[in-house]
Amino acid sequence: ARHDLFTPFSTLRWLALGPYHRIRWFESGTRKGEMAMAAKATSSASSSLSFFFSRSTPCPRNRGLCLLNLSASFLGNLRPRTVAAVPASRRLGRPAIAVRCSGGPFAARPSSELRMIPSSGGNPDDEKLRVFRELFSSPNVGIDAYVIPSQDAHQSEFIAECFMRRAFISGFTGSAGTAVVTKEQAALWTDGRYFLQAEKQLSQNWILMRSGNIGVPTTGEWLNDVLAPGCRIGIDPFLFSCDAAEELKSAVSKNHHELVYLYDFNLVDKIWNDSRPKPPMEPIRVHDIRYAGVDVFTKLSSLRAELHEAGCTAIVISMLDEIAWLLNLRGNDIPHSPVVYAYLIIEVDSAKLFVDYSKVTQEVMVHLETSGVELRPYETILSEIDSLAAQGAKLWLDTSTVNAAIFSKFKSACDRHVTNLKKKTKAKVQEKLQVHENNNSAISGPCGFYSASPVTFAKALKNGAELEGMRNCHLRDAAALAEFWSWLEEVVQRTVVTEVEVADRLLEFRSKQIGFIGTSFDTISGSGANGAIIHYKPEPDSCSIVDDKNLFLLDSGGQYVDGTTDITRTVHFGEPTARQKECFTRVLQGHIALDQAIFPERTPGFVLDALARVPLWKIGLDYRHGTGHGVGAALNVHEGPQSISFRFGNMSPLRKGMIVSNEPGYYEDHSFGIRIEVL
Amino acid sequence: ARHDLFTPFSTLRWLALGPYHRIRWFESGTRKGEMAMAAKATSSASSSLSFFFSRSTPCPRNRGLCLLNLSASFLGNLRPRTVAAVPASRRLGRPAIAVRCSGGPFAARPSSELRMIPSSGGNPDDEKLRVFRELFSSPNVGIDAYVIPSQDAHQSEFIAECFMRRAFISGFTGSAGTAVVTKEQAALWTDGRYFLQAEKQLSQNWILMRSGNIGVPTTGEWLNDVLAPGCRIGIDPFLFSCDAAEELKSAVSKNHHELVYLYDFNLVDKIWNDSRPKPPMEPIRVHDIRYAGVDVFTKLSSLRAELHEAGCTAIVISMLDEIAWLLNLRGNDIPHSPVVYAYLIIEVDSAKLFVDYSKVTQEVMVHLETSGVELRPYETILSEIDSLAAQGAKLWLDTSTVNAAIFSKFKSACDRHVTNLKKKTKAKVQEKLQVHENNNSAISGPCGFYSASPVTFAKALKNGAELEGMRNCHLRDAAALAEFWSWLEEVVQRTVVTEVEVADRLLEFRSKQIGFIGTSFDTISGSGANGAIIHYKPEPDSCSIVDDKNLFLLDSGGQYVDGTTDITRTVHFGEPTARQKECFTRVLQGHIALDQAIFPERTPGFVLDALARVPLWKIGLDYRHGTGHGVGAALNVHEGPQSISFRFGNMSPLRKGMIVSNEPGYYEDHSFGIRIEVL
Repeated sequence: ARHDLFTPFSTLRWLALGPYHRIRWFESGTRKGEMAMAAKATSSASSSLSFFFSRSTPCPRNRGLCLLNLSASFLGNLRPRTVAAVPASRRLGRPAIAVRCSGGPFAARPSSELRMIPSSGGNPDDEKLRVFRELFSSPNVGIDAYVIPSQDAHQSEFIAECFMRRAFISGFTGSAGTAVVTKEQAALWTDGRYFLQAEKQLSQNWILMRSGNIGVPTTGEWLNDVLAPGCRIGIDPFLFSCDAAEELKSAVSKNHHELVYLYDFNLVDKIWNDSRPKPPMEPIRVHDIRYAGVDVFTKLSSLRAELHEAGCTAIVISMLDEIAWLLNLRGNDIPHSPVVYAYLIIEVDSAKLFVDYSKVTQEVMVHLETSGVELRPYETILSEIDSLAAQGAKLWLDTSTVNAAIFSKFKSACDRHVTNLKKKTKAKVQEKLQVHENNNSAISGPCGFYSASPVTFAKALKNGAELEGMRNCHLRDAAALAEFWSWLEEVVQRTVVTEVEVADRLLEFRSKQIGFIGTSFDTISGSGANGAIIHYKPEPDSCSIVDDKNLFLLDSGGQYVDGTTDITRTVHFGEPTARQKECFTRVLQGHIALDQAIFPERTPGFVLDALARVPLWKIGLDYRHGTGHGVGAALNVHEGPQSISFRFGNMSPLRKGMIVSNEPGYYEDHSFGIRIEVL
Repeated sequence: ARHDLFTPFSTLRWLALGPYHRIRWFESGTRKGEMAMAAKATSSASSSLSFFFSRSTPCPRNRGLCLLNLSASFLGNLRPRTVAAVPASRRLGRPAIAVRCSGGPFAARPSSELRMIPSSGGNPDDEKLRVFRELFSSPNVGIDAYVIPSQDAHQSEFIAECFMRRAFISGFTGSAGTAVVTKEQAALWTDGRYFLQAEKQLSQNWILMRSGNIGVPTTGEWLNDVLAPGCRIGIDPFLFSCDAAEELKSAVSKNHHELVYLYDFNLVDKIWNDSRPKPPMEPIRVHDIRYAGVDVFTKLSSLRAELHEAGCTAIVISMLDEIAWLLNLRGNDIPHSPVVYAYLIIEVDSAKLFVDYSKVTQEVMVHLETSGVELRPYETILSEIDSLAAQGAKLWLDTSTVNAAIFSKFKSACDRHVTNLKKKTKAKVQEKLQVHENNNSAISGPCGFYSASPVTFAKALKNGAELEGMRNCHLRDAAALAEFWSWLEEVVQRTVVTEVEVADRLLEFRSKQIGFIGTSFDTISGSGANGAIIHYKPEPDSCSIVDDKNLFLLDSGGQYVDGTTDITRTVHFGEPTARQKECFTRVLQGHIALDQAIFPERTPGFVLDALARVPLWKIGLDYRHGTGHGVGAALNVHEGPQSISFRFGNMSPLRKGMIVSNEPGYYEDHSFGIRIEVL
């Protein structure tokens, strides 16, 4: 009867209360029917999830607080219940949603596909490095070292396989890392999450740099150390944000090295050849206005108003989720993220999408034409930047995301055109004597306006349709999870099941849901000690089994046509220890404290972070990750600008319409991990 | 029986729990006996204060949380109990404390003494301004405007009457404000707390500038507006911190004005003459090592180690509480603050105290000599600064507190001496060829090291003796308050009593306590709507009465030989409204949440601020002040660097040994105010 308190059906909303807002469970009256149906579809799993509340006193106003003394008993006695599964079509509140089922063009791409990259493509590792280093002295290159970051040209969190250059060159497949190859040495930097994995995957030709450990230099410091002064260090300027490139440039300048931008080709691509995966080619689709809520014309108008206010005539947008959101388009270029590789330039009276034409269907073409968006080949972005400068554009650039190639091209074009313009203007002024004073954008020079992208903020404030889509997909996602937990609880008692099998089975359950597209990130399926590895990714050949002896942490999410989910539950199919009960209770207390918080609009997220930690702090515990991140609406599972974290530098205010996760945890190294997450 | 939970005897401590700390009530085992005694001394007042707990369920581990549903009843039924008063000598845990009673040399100086400054000293206001403006064109002045801030030369929060120049020139006696007089106009800036008072006190010759209101210019903006470009604006450089002077200089430079430092005399002093109060002349006393805990030699050694580490050879300390703390001295120069007007220069092998010799008793002289501290006349500070530069000092200056006179003198002396040294060094180098390379402090020029004073941080971490003194004085203070509340509850039923009478009577009760010196700030005694004025100060001719119809807020504190107190209680002697109960309960919930917090060492205070606000936020309420400030040990009632506040810029970490107030509140304008405070 108390399923509404702790079911997996919960989602996050901001409700207005005067100027105050709160994060709360999803349980509005109109959804009650759907929730009841979904609850019916659940079996013992959801009963175990809601079990935590079954012994609480029935005081609705203080229900969170009633939990405080339950630690000794709340995790015991998981009794299965038999509930008939309801067909997916019946579970949907709106049968009219005309979405294609999975298996169609939005086929789920299981994350297992991407688990391994061929570490050397047939070449022994040292042969690969030898060939790679030969390129250093080829014509128009002439470098002493080359830096290979993890990123693609758009600073994406997840990237297409064909851009996993750092993984190819080093053999290390973790999500974060930087490789640096000099003529004599090769080194790879990664953080604490990946030390073990990197040790396994790197050959003896590579030095592992354990970032964050005391005495470990940064890439810049190391280059200053190992290279004689005055060397040339090459980078692919498309793969560095402007800010990152400037930072590296400044670091290596201390030993008088020059940072060389190699625009024309990526050195890794040159040796990757046949083993390189094909670039993504799947068609773009229109994100239905029912889910987008606001049409492209309106979004572009708002953006243009912001450009005007800032005195800008154009903006370059390179973040793929910003482009997808602004143009109501979705793609399938990157695992987990429904985006398409593209750049977008918005001017006062035009909009140009730089994209591979082969991905543009007839439907998309019409959609773009209606919205006044022209197509340009993806590769022509730099020449367009040049034209913009020539036209005297006041160009808005977010230097934290726009790559160094674009930034640097615009800067040098500006310098060139300004020089030219000065000559011309001089002549003109002599003729016309300041006629253009109040309308001088045509004759004054181009310049950059460097500020955070306004699209980041606009995208973060979800409209009614986006919130509705998020709620609907969470209902379907929750139904899949309920079926999954029911299956798992039963199977654990009966047979041996591994973490990878569990993750794969979860994907199957999700795939049956209408509108499912794929996972929104690699499923974290961690039993026992693996649960304590915050970004654990089980591998088929090394993973643990899920049993009734250990806590099991499952953090997963789905991409749906109407929204994006991200949910974590930690369960025990046997009898947890007193310590596990104590820790779980405190994590849950923190989760509820944050969930129940009401706060003034525009409070920065870090103000709320402590609410989720206080119960753990009381016994000297804590967790080393943030408490909440933004989530896109049928977009990236991680998005800014808001967060709920101890990173006090992020002053982004929380505002009505934002979606944030609530995921406190506790991790006892080599023993168990706990995390409880809803959006 | 539950007096230990909410008596006025509580003080703040930091308890170690691994690397975690908590703020908690004072109730350690060894003090139990004293507390029981003190509790006996209380009458109905303390029983009413602890009443809030009498209906809570007796669950000791979650006692704070049990309060949550009591709002409807907790403030009713204040029933007096008869308890015999215990003589002060018996109440003290340590009868051996040999402190002189009040009435001796540490006579309490009631704040009423300072309530009014003669607003015009016999002169009509316009005559005063006329004479004042005549000085603008006297020799060596030649200015077009003069700025008169509230401060003394040491950036003190409270100042001696003889330095209340802004109050004298303008007639406005509030604690915060800046007067600016030009040849034609006179304007006074103050903030929202004082708009009404300033309206009353300013004559028609003055323009009131309501700081913080939309469209109200800053002093700099106003000067740029009313003066023709290129004027000379005079200030007394002793009365501006270096940072404040630089800010004003930069603001007025926009209209090409020059900020002129008039070192030789203060223009207001020139016309104040006979009506000016005498400068404070009371003797300095030694702060007993029993209360100080650490001797001067040790404190100076630590400071010198810090200077050495920063590469400095000397430091100028101008904050009066820092000097008092470092030298274990106390004075009686300023109401509420037991400090003495002085500067202190610490060098590697010497220490010089710049002070009025007449205040130095034989005992103090011996104490200083023992500690290696020499005396210098207060007025000779600038010439000593000059000598320091001549000796090539690397001088540590805290530009946020050191005045512009000192800073500017040092800077110009540096410039002069560096020029001289360069000439000399050139000659020397030709002779000796870089002999001094590794020992070049003697020949390299003087320079400044601008950083926050290290004494601020050292002083904030209380040692065992200081904490002990704080606990002991809080016990005696609490006994006085218990007697007071008992008296007040009885008198309110019987007769009419005003806010001022209540404050004066409270002072009487405190004065009976051993070691009492004076109030630690102006008592805020606010009945009904006056309680909503956060810094309310009742005046005899206009104050309200305290009755059984209104909430009564009392925020007060005492200076004792062994510590400093600051405590706020809000009570009702009749039946509070449902709204008042609701608000009080939520303020108390916030107070308890902060009180019960345990958190990692070095957490910045702003992280905890929300804990105290969450219960109010839940119904859309908040309060517009910080939640906690540092408190000195037998020193200033407000001190840094830590605070618990929404001012996110203050990253000062909370550390073991710090003392912070816990004082959430709620204010309903024109109706009532609630604040609950302990240290």
